[in-house]
Amino acid sequence: MKVSRIGEFGLIGKLAGRVAAATDKRWKSWRQLIVGIGDDAAVWRPRSPFQIITVDSLVEKVHFSLKTTTWQELGWKAIAVNLSDIAAMGGIPMYALISLGLPSDTKVEDVQALYDGMIAVTEKFGVTIIGGDTVGSPIVFISVTVIGCASNKDDKVLIRSAARPGDKIAVTGTLGASAAGLAMLTRNLKFPPKATAELRRAHLQPCPRVIEGQKLLACGVMAGMDISDGLVGDLTHICEMSRLGACLNIDLVPVSPVAKACFGDRALEFALNGGEDYELLFTAPARVIQRVKKALDCRVTVVGEITAKNPGKVVLVDSAGSPINLKKGGWDAFKK
Amino acid sequence: MKVSRIGEFGLIGKLAGRVAAATDKRWKSWRQLIVGIGDDAAVWRPRSPFQIITVDSLVEKVHFSLKTTTWQELGWKAIAVNLSDIAAMGGIPMYALISLGLPSDTKVEDVQALYDGMIAVTEKFGVTIIGGDTVGSPIVFISVTVIGCASNKDDKVLIRSAARPGDKIAVTGTLGASAAGLAMLTRNLKFPPKATAELRRAHLQPCPRVIEGQKLLACGVMAGMDISDGLVGDLTHICEMSRLGACLNIDLVPVSPVAKACFGDRALEFALNGGEDYELLFTAPARVIQRVKKALDCRVTVVGEITAKNPGKVVLVDSAGSPINLKKGGWDAFKK
Repeated sequence: MKVSRIGEFGLIGKLAGRVAAATDKRWKSWRQLIVGIGDDAAVWRPRSPFQIITVDSLVEKVHFSLKTTTWQELGWKAIAVNLSDIAAMGGIPMYALISLGLPSDTKVEDVQALYDGMIAVTEKFGVTIIGGDTVGSPIVFISVTVIGCASNKDDKVLIRSAARPGDKIAVTGTLGASAAGLAMLTRNLKFPPKATAELRRAHLQPCPRVIEGQKLLACGVMAGMDISDGLVGDLTHICEMSRLGACLNIDLVPVSPVAKACFGDRALEFALNGGEDYELLFTAPARVIQRVKKALDCRVTVVGEITAKNPGKVVLVDSAGSPINLKKGGWDAFKK
Repeated sequence: MKVSRIGEFGLIGKLAGRVAAATDKRWKSWRQLIVGIGDDAAVWRPRSPFQIITVDSLVEKVHFSLKTTTWQELGWKAIAVNLSDIAAMGGIPMYALISLGLPSDTKVEDVQALYDGMIAVTEKFGVTIIGGDTVGSPIVFISVTVIGCASNKDDKVLIRSAARPGDKIAVTGTLGASAAGLAMLTRNLKFPPKATAELRRAHLQPCPRVIEGQKLLACGVMAGMDISDGLVGDLTHICEMSRLGACLNIDLVPVSPVAKACFGDRALEFALNGGEDYELLFTAPARVIQRVKKALDCRVTVVGEITAKNPGKVVLVDSAGSPINLKKGGWDAFKK
């Protein structure tokens, strides 16, 4: 059945029921919610004195292709990238609102699968969908707003501008699998089943570092962000906002083993410039990094150091200290 | 210059500067803002124990045409329709986030004009733009999130489900000018300059009833919403959510004089089913309505009564009490 047949309000009715069923399970956060889906706006009672908000849109044929992405994966990813922004501040994600643009010939079952993906990731992270709107559109787009709260009693959050000279630069997890997954999907490359599944999941079902972001703050980290544009591009953002430079040792970058197994030397480029890994990139004095390594369950790798020289710039070196020349790259929505 | 030339980050830089200049003027709300544009997410300190949030998207060729809408008008409207949702809850709008989808050949000057329109309406209502994202897209879309807070110390907000049998149904202002403006623009109809300007403004630069929504609450109104889908359609939403019926006297509907002057008898249809007037529709006992009429500076008109019979349905009658048969109509994003 196409959405044009049941109409906007029929669709909202179907989706609201699905979301309400998921919400009921989570009565704890529900109690903070005064007005949920179905009114002009949603109303909640903040459980912390500081509220965090982010919005990000995914657009068909720009950020995803329905030829290579299932609706369920799309739903997961649309929410996950926003949860990653809350994680990047060290916050606790609480609520999500979905603004969905759909062609009128979209199948109702596909929209339900999209919501299944959204509900799967919101349930995993204790987030409640509290509103949104559904509009007609020649292409599919999903604009997600996520509200979180500070994970501590004061207003501490991870920000991009708090790096200090001498800080070590570190990343969680490994990098490059998402871009490798995208390359595999768009160029229809064949790899062994386990590698295929891993690369696909890295690109389409990223797992935001929500708990890790909160732990970074608790360990005393001040400067951090998530890796969405690529390690070099995102580190450049930290340098620009902190008015400092960075020296990045490419030999230390934790390249995803599966990306390396499938793409060889290109995996390093994916790790540096590919983006969409949704790992955390942060800077802190060496003793804080030691604390972080003990506190986090995932891999934490130091990849370089913040410098007073070259403000706004990232200098790439290898372990011998020789400068490396790579294109800056990173994802830009408009440049081709 | 096209946005493809300066790229996403160049564009964000230009827009962030423009928004920051507008924000500086508003240091009072700025003091509540801990992290604004330029980080992974924005952080604010709620000034009321209840927070209100809404999101709405406008899509090119579905909700607007750039052949008939200036970029500045588009910016105004994209924000105004969301402020209207906060007004519909009786809340105080505080912050806005903008998710913007733009083709890469969009002119930078057009995007700046769009932001000029957004800044004009946010300044009028004391709202600060605190974040968002800008993405490539084959069509223009604007997804706006607005955060507000309750205008009173408890959790009172106007909701759709609070109508009671015997409540009078009332609306602010007049209805039909927005749909008349749309008809004028799409069919390129010619009217005298003053009427043309008035119809154009009604459709493209609606003025949300923010103060009026807060006053409704203060007067004791419990049930209300804004008229975005059309009077009959929106009253049906109140009936469905309140599980009651409504009797609407079409002879009492305050049809916009300019719509009537330009479209004659069709203006009533615009007023009943046109939508996008962004007036407030509310129900309350007669004595509360009397209080409202004294408190509000705008026209307030009683157009009918909430009934225990016909739950979920709106019955149209004329002043003689005869039932009227009109198509239910109202705006639906998918039905054609």
